Amino acid sequence: MSEPSSRLLSALTAESQAEWRGYTCHSFVAQLGGGTLPKAAFLHYLRQDYVFLVHFARAWALAVVKSDRIDEMRIAAGTVHALIDEEMKLHIATCAEEGIGEEDLAATTESPANLAYTRFVMDAGLKGDLLDLLVALAPCVFGYGEIGRRLAEETDGPPPDHPYRDWISTYAGDDYQGVCDTVGTLIDNVAARTIGDAYAASPRWPALTETFATACRLEADFWQMGLEGT
Amino acid sequence: MSEPSSRLLSALTAESQAEWRGYTCHSFVAQLGGGTLPKAAFLHYLRQDYVFLVHFARAWALAVVKSDRIDEMRIAAGTVHALIDEEMKLHIATCAEEGIGEEDLAATTESPANLAYTRFVMDAGLKGDLLDLLVALAPCVFGYGEIGRRLAEETDGPPPDHPYRDWISTYAGDDYQGVCDTVGTLIDNVAARTIGDAYAASPRWPALTETFATACRLEADFWQMGLEGT
Amino acid sequence: MSEPSSRLLSALTAESQAEWRGYTCHSFVAQLGGGTLPKAAFLHYLRQDYVFLVHFARAWALAVVKSDRIDEMRIAAGTVHALIDEEMKLHIATCAEEGIGEEDLAATTESPANLAYTRFVMDAGLKGDLLDLLVALAPCVFGYGEIGRRLAEETDGPPPDHPYRDWISTYAGDDYQGVCDTVGTLIDNVAARTIGDAYAASPRWPALTETFATACRLEADFWQMGLEGT
Amino acid sequence: MSEPSSRLLSALTAESQAEWRGYTCHSFVAQLGGGTLPKAAFLHYLRQDYVFLVHFARAWALAVVKSDRIDEMRIAAGTVHALIDEEMKLHIATCAEEGIGEEDLAATTESPANLAYTRFVMDAGLKGDLLDLLVALAPCVFGYGEIGRRLAEETDGPPPDHPYRDWISTYAGDDYQGVCDTVGTLIDNVAARTIGDAYAASPRWPALTETFATACRLEADFWQMGLEGT
Repeated sequence: MSEPSSRLLSALTAESQAEWRGYTCHSFVAQLGGGTLPKAAFLHYLRQDYVFLVHFARAWALAVVKSDRIDEMRIAAGTVHALIDEEMKLHIATCAEEGIGEEDLAATTESPANLAYTRFVMDAGLKGDLLDLLVALAPCVFGYGEIGRRLAEETDGPPPDHPYRDWISTYAGDDYQGVCDTVGTLIDNVAARTIGDAYAASPRWPALTETFATACRLEADFWQMGLEGT
Repeated sequence: MSEPSSRLLSALTAESQAEWRGYTCHSFVAQLGGGTLPKAAFLHYLRQDYVFLVHFARAWALAVVKSDRIDEMRIAAGTVHALIDEEMKLHIATCAEEGIGEEDLAATTESPANLAYTRFVMDAGLKGDLLDLLVALAPCVFGYGEIGRRLAEETDGPPPDHPYRDWISTYAGDDYQGVCDTVGTLIDNVAARTIGDAYAASPRWPALTETFATACRLEADFWQMGLEGT
Repeated sequence: MSEPSSRLLSALTAESQAEWRGYTCHSFVAQLGGGTLPKAAFLHYLRQDYVFLVHFARAWALAVVKSDRIDEMRIAAGTVHALIDEEMKLHIATCAEEGIGEEDLAATTESPANLAYTRFVMDAGLKGDLLDLLVALAPCVFGYGEIGRRLAEETDGPPPDHPYRDWISTYAGDDYQGVCDTVGTLIDNVAARTIGDAYAASPRWPALTETFATACRLEADFWQMGLEGT
Repeated sequence: MSEPSSRLLSALTAESQAEWRGYTCHSFVAQLGGGTLPKAAFLHYLRQDYVFLVHFARAWALAVVKSDRIDEMRIAAGTVHALIDEEMKLHIATCAEEGIGEEDLAATTESPANLAYTRFVMDAGLKGDLLDLLVALAPCVFGYGEIGRRLAEETDGPPPDHPYRDWISTYAGDDYQGVCDTVGTLIDNVAARTIGDAYAASPRWPALTETFATACRLEADFWQMGLEGT
């Protein structure tokens, strides 16, 4: 399993190492990988994440609105489809096993951490251009990909009896890793035709890294909300 | 072939009969059905319509942004997909036969009639809610469906040697008619949960009919632009 | 001092009494009125509120974008002006007394509670129509007006030596109360021409009250953030 | 009377000289300066321009939404105010002299040329960032300033008996020229912090010049609509 090769992601994580690690190595993640995460915390997270995915799909639809190249619109629209029709299945299936139905899921009251992150992303898109929006979306897309890969390696699989096997397998799997590759190419192309190749030389670089760092902090808050939901 | 049964569409066309007929029975449409439309006019229209579909897909993506029910997001996202991946194929194939490549198509300078209609729809979505946006989108979706059905009936098919057979078959075909049915259900549901069932009793009705009538006029201008492109 | 007479506000607070009280009678407010609020909590709140006002002014500008009547655009634009040029003065002056300069204020890192509320309002405006946006804006506008009036009455003035005299006087004062009256008329007019006079009979009423209740909860979180900033 | 010194405007007009001249030296403008423009054409234009200003004010409000610096928000909000409260007065007063009341003005049916231009600007703002929006707004702001200055010079005043004296004086006057100066500074600052100082070296330059050229063409169409309204 190789890392997605997005130049822009590498540059952004290099600028915001503390925020990136605070998010991708959060205690929730460590406990999830170690299998010690309380089931109640996981279910609380999963219910919020279902609502999150609704707004995340809206944000990817906003990327279609903000695009004008058919190939890019196709990738963004494909991501909307993957979120609504694929990624949510994990949530619905896992919650169903625990006796939580889909209507119940959809009626979940959004936590403030959920509101903060999703609406920050939407507003980044309303305020800025396609690049601003994609940078705000990046921590979620690529962070879950990195966490999935790492936890799959650390757990050697994960093994069939791992309590969070489905979650890890979903994000470590070829489908999701393929989404990361496609989005990596998209975001690099959009960056190239917006700020050129010398990212740090662009006058927009400080604001872009600030957007990325804020999104990482809000992702960490989301894990924390999961932990505190027990 | 039966008409899509959208209550809202019926109510809107009843309020704006002159505009609806001015659009769906425009001379461009009559000549297209009769096979007398000059090829140059058709190709001029087709090139502009390719650019139109890009912005129309953006407008349907905006419908995803403005939605919060997964089933409705799925329909709107499916329409973005149908526009980008299906409807454009007709344009690309027909233009290719005439020696117009896809890059050439994408480089078409938008006519003012094209700009006026697509951007009016986008702004209806930015200014209003999902219902306002869907009403602005309705003339295009349902008008092409009605024109396709009518021309297929009038031409008995159309026959294999009809110069605009592919165009008529596309919009009269089950795929496109199915889109009209799905969108009809969507728009009726959104209307019901926004202004209730007694449409004309809603204080929003005059503004909604005005949006619909304006979109019909801009569609008629689009046909006229096609005719004048010869 | 009489209450602003907005029918819509009365109907919304009646539906969400717990959330409205949780916000307008929050411990932060009680301590502020009683003069016992730690200065550090007040300054922490004030710095965040400065950043809040920037995004709140953006949200009122979005109300101009979503309007099409000149008189309503004028009110919304006047509110943008009042926020940028008037309300911020209190923050700048108070912080200056404490040695916090305006550049320092503008460089404040937004707290998650701040992000959650302001971006929720922006997204309510992007997703819905002018009424949805105004309902999301209502708790802030009218809540501060009610709190200002109540604290001025409870403190008999407030007296010259009250540590938070300027804050209370600003929101209890004629200028701010006048803004509440004007916005009350605006929001009632927009409601009348959007959902009619029988609010609760509109199919939109549950969603509108949910928006209002969420905004009240996010306002309460904002006070809580202030308390915890000590 | 000196020209506003916007570096960005100079660079954009240099790239799109034909479009800039096609707009600023349109026959409508020449006839207006020469005093030979039929009154009916002028009144047709003025009625459409009243509706135009409503949407132009919305577009400047969108600039506030897309900004995050208080000084820039203040300029954009000030322009909204100038449009709604100052520039419209000319239209209202001139039309009143001809027996056209303000309600009549507000009820004007927008021409397609009007829709095309204003909605193109709104969508440029929704799709892109603040710079994209300002570039779409630039031809109107600066073009009217240049036309006003030039016609005032050509007509030596204009003299008291010039039939379009008020129009020329408004746009040649200190108030409007001051708006051009302020907006010139704003647009140069936004360009500097978005694409840097070497405009043509930015990968965004072709798209920005295309936006500017399209807006100039749509402005020329607007004059043409005026001429054809007789």
